[in-house]
Amino acid sequence: MNDRTLLAGRDPLVFAGSPLDRGDLLRRDESAMDTLLAGEDGWWMGLVEGDPVLQQQGGLYWFRRHEIADLADMDAGLFLGHYKGSPCFSAVITKADSLPLDGEISPARQAAMALSHDEAAIYAQAKALHAWHGRHGFCAACGETTRIKSGGGRRICNACESEHFPRVDPVVIMLATDGDRCLLGRQASWPEGVWSALAGFVEPAETLEEACARELEEEAGVKADIAAIRYVMGQPWPFPSSLMIGLVAPVFDASLTIDTHELEQARWFSRDEVRDMLATRHPDATMPPSIAIARRLAELWADEVI
Amino acid sequence: MNDRTLLAGRDPLVFAGSPLDRGDLLRRDESAMDTLLAGEDGWWMGLVEGDPVLQQQGGLYWFRRHEIADLADMDAGLFLGHYKGSPCFSAVITKADSLPLDGEISPARQAAMALSHDEAAIYAQAKALHAWHGRHGFCAACGETTRIKSGGGRRICNACESEHFPRVDPVVIMLATDGDRCLLGRQASWPEGVWSALAGFVEPAETLEEACARELEEEAGVKADIAAIRYVMGQPWPFPSSLMIGLVAPVFDASLTIDTHELEQARWFSRDEVRDMLATRHPDATMPPSIAIARRLAELWADEVI
Repeated sequence: MNDRTLLAGRDPLVFAGSPLDRGDLLRRDESAMDTLLAGEDGWWMGLVEGDPVLQQQGGLYWFRRHEIADLADMDAGLFLGHYKGSPCFSAVITKADSLPLDGEISPARQAAMALSHDEAAIYAQAKALHAWHGRHGFCAACGETTRIKSGGGRRICNACESEHFPRVDPVVIMLATDGDRCLLGRQASWPEGVWSALAGFVEPAETLEEACARELEEEAGVKADIAAIRYVMGQPWPFPSSLMIGLVAPVFDASLTIDTHELEQARWFSRDEVRDMLATRHPDATMPPSIAIARRLAELWADEVI
Repeated sequence: MNDRTLLAGRDPLVFAGSPLDRGDLLRRDESAMDTLLAGEDGWWMGLVEGDPVLQQQGGLYWFRRHEIADLADMDAGLFLGHYKGSPCFSAVITKADSLPLDGEISPARQAAMALSHDEAAIYAQAKALHAWHGRHGFCAACGETTRIKSGGGRRICNACESEHFPRVDPVVIMLATDGDRCLLGRQASWPEGVWSALAGFVEPAETLEEACARELEEEAGVKADIAAIRYVMGQPWPFPSSLMIGLVAPVFDASLTIDTHELEQARWFSRDEVRDMLATRHPDATMPPSIAIARRLAELWADEVI
């Protein structure tokens, strides 16, 4: 395993490190939660189809309740947590045409690169929660309508009273390695020349390491020894509800059989090639931007930390 | 970080290590999947309210299709994967009174301790999937009915065609440590004298380490340094759909403030006490059974591996 002190000395990954106190205890008191959501204290963030509203000078546009109430679907009002003593909320903005003059909608990934670390993490929480609430107006168990409880921490069925909790979908993203080479792939839909680490959803009844080995074999035909796979670090990825779990996976069989349904291409890159890609001096291959954990894994491997 | 070779030398955890090839490629061909499910090849496992059917002499009771078709809800027939060339399936048994004479229903946890490692892992997959399918007959997005696709790998809405995928809920389970002491808690509902590691669900937009630190602070008031938290190992836990992620978390503030809503008690145990608990020679405290990752974490810590 890597030396965690080397990991810790680097910039944190975007969307991780929320400064909010999510207020687990407070959420259990539904009437306190109703009072908080209806109160004039605190600050509201608005999301337009999942994208945040930013100030002209950068940073999230935080509204007061009366301001956002004119713009937003307050039935989808969520309590995110406390930040420096103030409660923070989010709502879905339905009247985007009426935004204040100094607020503008920013595409999610672009915002992620522009926001402060704290605000990117707060936004990630709001984005993941609203995406889930927006798709869970009905009870999967009985088909009747559901309503928000616990400030957005769960929904409850209006008929059968089943509880439903926001999803967090674990995704393994792994740098397969073969000595001084690592495996990168690309999907046909990506910009030309971009290569990244392979990834896939963890399925029911498998460990992270098993999911990693399965995905590597399914997508690229390479075989990893489950006992040799190492956890590196993770990153929340609210598109819509993933938790990216970064692993490094030494393989014992490096021969490639590409699943062209999943990947356009996959190939082994030398450490020098990856260094060139990270430094943007490779003739025809590049890595994803710095917000992506895939790039961080490649950096750590290029620096021989993992 | 621990030396993984020390982890690898131990028995694998129950429910991990499925020997099945889940057949990702095969599942994409719906007509091939229909043919496979309707065919006479392969073996079927039956679940009665989530519990498996065992042979009198131990081991899962594997049925042929015509046998299980007389007993089971074949609308909930799932393809689990291939095992040594044979397809394996599972279905919900609705006529448990008509079980063959040499089959008997076993409570899930008891079965987990009695089954072979391979069969426990296969059963875990079936149990997690049937629990999910059983609670997802309706579309959370529109309220209409859904149907099984991809042999059970997803459901699709009959009205709006939304896709829904089985959940895997990441849960952090952590041994908080303070030098030569570790933190264990107990819930009021547990058998007297049983103590275990603290645990909790990962919430949207947080990393495993952040969830670990949050839960420790919420439940016990102790504070862990996120950068010092280490991943140890994981275990699928199909009650109903958790992936337990075992961590070790050195704390920098060990003073306890117990959330009595979650825990009846929590306290620091010395390494010698934990060794006594594991050896069943502690006067009044014991650990969970060997199927639990909490016990494995305690064993590794008692042996100074983590």
